[in-house]
Amino acid sequence: MKLYDYPKAPNPRRVNIFLAEKGIEIERVPVDLMKAEQLKPEYRAKNPACDVPMLELDDGTCISQIRAICRYFEEIEPSPPLLGSTPTEKAQCEMWEHLASMNGLLAIAEVFRNTAPGFAGRAGVGPHSYEQSPELAERGLHRVSNFFTDFDQRLSDNDYVAGDFYSMADITTLVACDFARWIKQEIPAECSNLRSWYDRISQRPAVQANS
Amino acid sequence: MKLYDYPKAPNPRRVNIFLAEKGIEIERVPVDLMKAEQLKPEYRAKNPACDVPMLELDDGTCISQIRAICRYFEEIEPSPPLLGSTPTEKAQCEMWEHLASMNGLLAIAEVFRNTAPGFAGRAGVGPHSYEQSPELAERGLHRVSNFFTDFDQRLSDNDYVAGDFYSMADITTLVACDFARWIKQEIPAECSNLRSWYDRISQRPAVQANS
Repeated sequence: MKLYDYPKAPNPRRVNIFLAEKGIEIERVPVDLMKAEQLKPEYRAKNPACDVPMLELDDGTCISQIRAICRYFEEIEPSPPLLGSTPTEKAQCEMWEHLASMNGLLAIAEVFRNTAPGFAGRAGVGPHSYEQSPELAERGLHRVSNFFTDFDQRLSDNDYVAGDFYSMADITTLVACDFARWIKQEIPAECSNLRSWYDRISQRPAVQANS
Repeated sequence: MKLYDYPKAPNPRRVNIFLAEKGIEIERVPVDLMKAEQLKPEYRAKNPACDVPMLELDDGTCISQIRAICRYFEEIEPSPPLLGSTPTEKAQCEMWEHLASMNGLLAIAEVFRNTAPGFAGRAGVGPHSYEQSPELAERGLHRVSNFFTDFDQRLSDNDYVAGDFYSMADITTLVACDFARWIKQEIPAECSNLRSWYDRISQRPAVQANS
């Protein structure tokens, strides 16, 4: 089993924190996104979505997409649970992880990829060419602002993003907060619930080991 | 337990097909998106994301986001499995369901919500106001075209979207193909694998009952 990895990028970091929380060691194969190695034919043959990370199982099956990779590890190594324990917790984790992905990470990525000069002509993730869109970058900035406010509200009466248990929803939200620095955005001072949650989660050994 | 529903829209339809496949009957509460009932204070108090469908459990817990609602039902009623049976199948289902959501449904929604006159000033799903973006609509059309081609390729050597088993990934892909008609797009004639898969899946009783 091998994980194709680029630890500096936010999506691989989500998986790396997840694995560290479970204490799973795995062989890693570096894929240098700065050299566009994810678009090379041999990688594309394994992963047509051309994104990183990707998990290659011993039988050759290749799994991409963060939630899919994490699901695999949750199934083979259920302890500690990071996707919830009861049906309700599992649903809450999926719900909040999805909202953190869509309204946090994706919004930030929309700003970053539609403004950074290096992404001209490839503003989307994956094999297809899309031109940068100033409108999408501008919308992204509004979305990031709403993400901070909405998650601050959520954390006003919950210890963790998905409720009263630590989960993948916290990992994705934390990675989004750090990724926001790439577009020069920070958790606003008035979002005190989000800030104190951030300070608490940042101190976890699995997060510190992947910072 | 109640499902807040608007069966004409693509996201509620995903859950409704999922429930029909499992033979689950549930009380439904209509929420009329055409009257923006999802933005009313009483609904927003239950679901700050202001989207439909939403599942309200008997203890008052409210679950939004399709994958979260489906996860809950998969946990309480595992048969027939619709999110995969083995760790590998579960990961493949998550992977392809995610790709169908992001590259299919979301791309189509980007076109629809950024061009339909009724969505002026609220081009995003949820409580926040975003202006329509012609650039995003244009990008969406390219993305939809790539979605059809990519999934046709995937189905050239797989009976189902996630592999050799029927799953939520098929449901989301089918709903995306139908949703594409809202923006006057069809599966292209040359995508013969996708077309024959579509014809086969469309005949399932659970799909026919929610068409």
